[in-house]
Amino acid sequence: MDYHAILEHVLADIEPEIGCGRVADYIPALRSADPDRFGMAVADVDGPVTGVGDWEAPFSMQSVSKVFALALVIAADGEQVWQRVGREPSGNPFNSLVQLEHERGIPRNPFINAGALVVTDRLLSVTGDARGAMLDFLRAESGNPAVDFDPVVANSEAEHGARNAALGYFMASHDNVENPVPQVLEHYFWQCAIAMSCRDLALAGCFLARHGVRADGSRLLTRSDAKRVNAIMLTCGTYDAAGEFAYRVGLPGKSGVGGGILAIVPGRCALAVWSPGLDARGNSVAGVAALDRFTTRTGWSVF
Amino acid sequence: MDYHAILEHVLADIEPEIGCGRVADYIPALRSADPDRFGMAVADVDGPVTGVGDWEAPFSMQSVSKVFALALVIAADGEQVWQRVGREPSGNPFNSLVQLEHERGIPRNPFINAGALVVTDRLLSVTGDARGAMLDFLRAESGNPAVDFDPVVANSEAEHGARNAALGYFMASHDNVENPVPQVLEHYFWQCAIAMSCRDLALAGCFLARHGVRADGSRLLTRSDAKRVNAIMLTCGTYDAAGEFAYRVGLPGKSGVGGGILAIVPGRCALAVWSPGLDARGNSVAGVAALDRFTTRTGWSVF
Amino acid sequence: MDYHAILEHVLADIEPEIGCGRVADYIPALRSADPDRFGMAVADVDGPVTGVGDWEAPFSMQSVSKVFALALVIAADGEQVWQRVGREPSGNPFNSLVQLEHERGIPRNPFINAGALVVTDRLLSVTGDARGAMLDFLRAESGNPAVDFDPVVANSEAEHGARNAALGYFMASHDNVENPVPQVLEHYFWQCAIAMSCRDLALAGCFLARHGVRADGSRLLTRSDAKRVNAIMLTCGTYDAAGEFAYRVGLPGKSGVGGGILAIVPGRCALAVWSPGLDARGNSVAGVAALDRFTTRTGWSVF
Amino acid sequence: MDYHAILEHVLADIEPEIGCGRVADYIPALRSADPDRFGMAVADVDGPVTGVGDWEAPFSMQSVSKVFALALVIAADGEQVWQRVGREPSGNPFNSLVQLEHERGIPRNPFINAGALVVTDRLLSVTGDARGAMLDFLRAESGNPAVDFDPVVANSEAEHGARNAALGYFMASHDNVENPVPQVLEHYFWQCAIAMSCRDLALAGCFLARHGVRADGSRLLTRSDAKRVNAIMLTCGTYDAAGEFAYRVGLPGKSGVGGGILAIVPGRCALAVWSPGLDARGNSVAGVAALDRFTTRTGWSVF
Repeated sequence: MDYHAILEHVLADIEPEIGCGRVADYIPALRSADPDRFGMAVADVDGPVTGVGDWEAPFSMQSVSKVFALALVIAADGEQVWQRVGREPSGNPFNSLVQLEHERGIPRNPFINAGALVVTDRLLSVTGDARGAMLDFLRAESGNPAVDFDPVVANSEAEHGARNAALGYFMASHDNVENPVPQVLEHYFWQCAIAMSCRDLALAGCFLARHGVRADGSRLLTRSDAKRVNAIMLTCGTYDAAGEFAYRVGLPGKSGVGGGILAIVPGRCALAVWSPGLDARGNSVAGVAALDRFTTRTGWSVF
Repeated sequence: MDYHAILEHVLADIEPEIGCGRVADYIPALRSADPDRFGMAVADVDGPVTGVGDWEAPFSMQSVSKVFALALVIAADGEQVWQRVGREPSGNPFNSLVQLEHERGIPRNPFINAGALVVTDRLLSVTGDARGAMLDFLRAESGNPAVDFDPVVANSEAEHGARNAALGYFMASHDNVENPVPQVLEHYFWQCAIAMSCRDLALAGCFLARHGVRADGSRLLTRSDAKRVNAIMLTCGTYDAAGEFAYRVGLPGKSGVGGGILAIVPGRCALAVWSPGLDARGNSVAGVAALDRFTTRTGWSVF
Repeated sequence: MDYHAILEHVLADIEPEIGCGRVADYIPALRSADPDRFGMAVADVDGPVTGVGDWEAPFSMQSVSKVFALALVIAADGEQVWQRVGREPSGNPFNSLVQLEHERGIPRNPFINAGALVVTDRLLSVTGDARGAMLDFLRAESGNPAVDFDPVVANSEAEHGARNAALGYFMASHDNVENPVPQVLEHYFWQCAIAMSCRDLALAGCFLARHGVRADGSRLLTRSDAKRVNAIMLTCGTYDAAGEFAYRVGLPGKSGVGGGILAIVPGRCALAVWSPGLDARGNSVAGVAALDRFTTRTGWSVF
Repeated sequence: MDYHAILEHVLADIEPEIGCGRVADYIPALRSADPDRFGMAVADVDGPVTGVGDWEAPFSMQSVSKVFALALVIAADGEQVWQRVGREPSGNPFNSLVQLEHERGIPRNPFINAGALVVTDRLLSVTGDARGAMLDFLRAESGNPAVDFDPVVANSEAEHGARNAALGYFMASHDNVENPVPQVLEHYFWQCAIAMSCRDLALAGCFLARHGVRADGSRLLTRSDAKRVNAIMLTCGTYDAAGEFAYRVGLPGKSGVGGGILAIVPGRCALAVWSPGLDARGNSVAGVAALDRFTTRTGWSVF
């Protein structure tokens, strides 16, 4: 399979959509992103990685980090986390408090903000350093020691973090937070503020295409757990557009408001795409279009 | 692949779960189902069908019929139906009015009751006989002319159909019903009341494993539309347990409160399973367990 | 107290607000109302009635009828109705299904549509003719045998009654309807379609100012029940603006989308006002303003 | 009017209800309250105060403090506060986040916790010391310099204040908080933790019966504003039981989970009652019963 040729075709196909949508503006540090950037990378399960466009430019991971936090907490702590967070699509905008209240402080899934706070809280308990554990993992898998936190973004998140603070305190009021809320928030904000390129992200996520096996051949997740993380990405990975993403792209995927998306073709490859213009539901317009084209051209949907 | 041997193993594995759960009791006609029944069938994309247990005993399709209604309306009418129904998981019990009100009469997806009423309404407009069109299709695909409506169930549905009537009138108040509400309800109740066996259901659903191609080699859906129907089954097919079903089974599936489930292994086979005992979310306990075992034994999850 | 002089002052005060707001348009028969009409009448507990403007022109009662249905059902059936309907403000737009679902088919209060359907259903069971019982009462209290149903409005309500049908069937699905839903709806629509003037309405409602005593000196309600109906009017009588109405006017009141409002000064008088222009919550703009001015000028708020 | 005789009768009438209900247990400091305590006091607009039972024993004000915070902020700042908080009954349990989210951070009324936080926030901005301003006012009106904060209760509130913190941060995320959230919470918790007796509370609340005039004859609120505060008490003062309270008691009232209730007979007197056993909605069982009996015996409902 000539990945590079496919990516070139995909880029040509979706060029008109680059620059569409709106750059995230909920924190000042993201507002300055250039909507005309676009990058895409593919990491094959057997190692090679290739890309097109701005595929080596770092961007802010944002919610894409949630899938790594989930994998790390399952690796370290097994099934425990499912006592404190569900596995169902939310059917509501990604940071809704309504469902959380209705369900007594148990977030619907680990990819809405409330659920990710629970995962980070648990990862913090288990590792002692949730953000550090994630950074170490991402550097190791990408082979790039320059992957790092962006302190400007992290501080901006904290300054505008009232809504996440509300989620954290709300869950604390239901005894679903183990560590002090401000500490959990800090680790969460720093995880979201990790910057890395499509190249690095595709490499880092490839363990999910390899059924749980890391770049160095060691196993992070059991085959069964890797399959399950993919299932949760498919049903819950793109905010309130998971049904639409499954319908159009047909792959497990996790998006972030920085404009990045990680998608998995189980057994074959991991895809990373980035373009800052977002649709109304917070997913990259050009990114979703590119994944749509990729699966159409290759026929590699899971369905 | 020796399907029969696998099914025998699956049956042995899940035997303790047969009889677990509660038989649906919302209409009298379903209450009398025997909780100790269990059947399972596999229809290969190349034709052969085999099964174990009560795989040739007819049961009430109930909501499994919704996937056929959707396929038939897309086949007849293309993308039109998506103007009137969404594609997102509901995140609420299957017959909730809340979300419907919040979203102005547009049901979240075609597999919740409200969405299925919209699909039936449109199928009625397009074919002139929604229930007849479905029955014809099911008979043709299964090769079994004895597949038929169960009038006792249909009348029982109608007698206890106040909630579906509420859904219908509510959508009518939002101008999302084309035909008279009582007529739409009648076709909907009769569709749900079709009785067929696991054997017949696996054969009838196999066009989704064949990427849209019917038993006679003609095409019902484009490859792309077949893929999309599978995607919707995976994200929305098992009421408020779609995330759980994807996590455990990892296949597109559609369940009904009669205890039946249709699941698709794209490119390989269609699976039908039936056992009347339901879990709290309305899915067959032994049925889900059997599909879980099947995918574990074969490794045929989509993830 | 020279009521006529006060009403003249009130009319002068609020003249600029006549014609403001929007005429109800949910049924064609109400759309043709002239927004520049305004009438107001006061009926003293001792008998005399006087008015200004179009105080003798008949208008459509709409939801003002709900307070008479409630009084009649309490008179005929005592406290029974409170098993099937609550007494709390709804905190939601007047015809919301959300709360009804959350509270298992028990409407929050008798003045939201769902609650009024329950009251009419019970009044139908008790009297055999809910709409006839109301018409008889209104004619007797007003002394005007010309008070009558407006069949054009009644039929228009029925034609556009899908939402009320949805409410009715929804409550039926919770076993909170005794009579066939279509019959309950018919009586409800005809009650709402009664046309009467401010003069007639003030006279008809004066039993609530007389602590339960009718125009002929006989008792409809106990003193305690009359007080309670007034309390429910104050907390629930003006849709989702009950707090605002209490804040501005400070009297028990019941409004209708025909532009009419009945308000009670306990022990003194009943006020009826009519002007078709409605605010965003469905209350007459000039009507609320006139009542506000009346209580300011007289100091007759209950607070 | 011989208030003391009436109170004696009331006490005899409701004696069986003393000890009913459950003492508030959401913070440890309230759990130790003795459910068998009961006190009631009446302060006449002309000055005299009398009582029965434990009418001179201090108890924790809790939410009764909200009515004083509202009056003080209106006195200091006029109508400004209504830009940031509504005036409608909530139709939901008293600390619900759902409505707050639906209405973009504007609490429904000043007597739900979220609304009270907004009032305290504004009072803090205007006075520089929200809790101090309230304490000064209560001491002056009651003539009792021993009225004071209970630091054990205040600290217990803070320790178990995660839910109120969630409310505060949630509103901050909607730009509806002016001061740092922790500071607002601290003033709010200390206001709730003021301890005073029925005697002191009746005297302190009597300005609402005197149409805004303080004990020393000076005016705190205009007549119109005093009327309006009473209106809000009636429609919103007893959590999700305002309709029920209006129906049974028929007076403006504000309750607290410490078991206290302040009720106003406009133009006549202020009533304070205390008994720690609460009903399911958080109102004192014996307290509501006593007010019900008082209005029945005197005929002094506002309706």
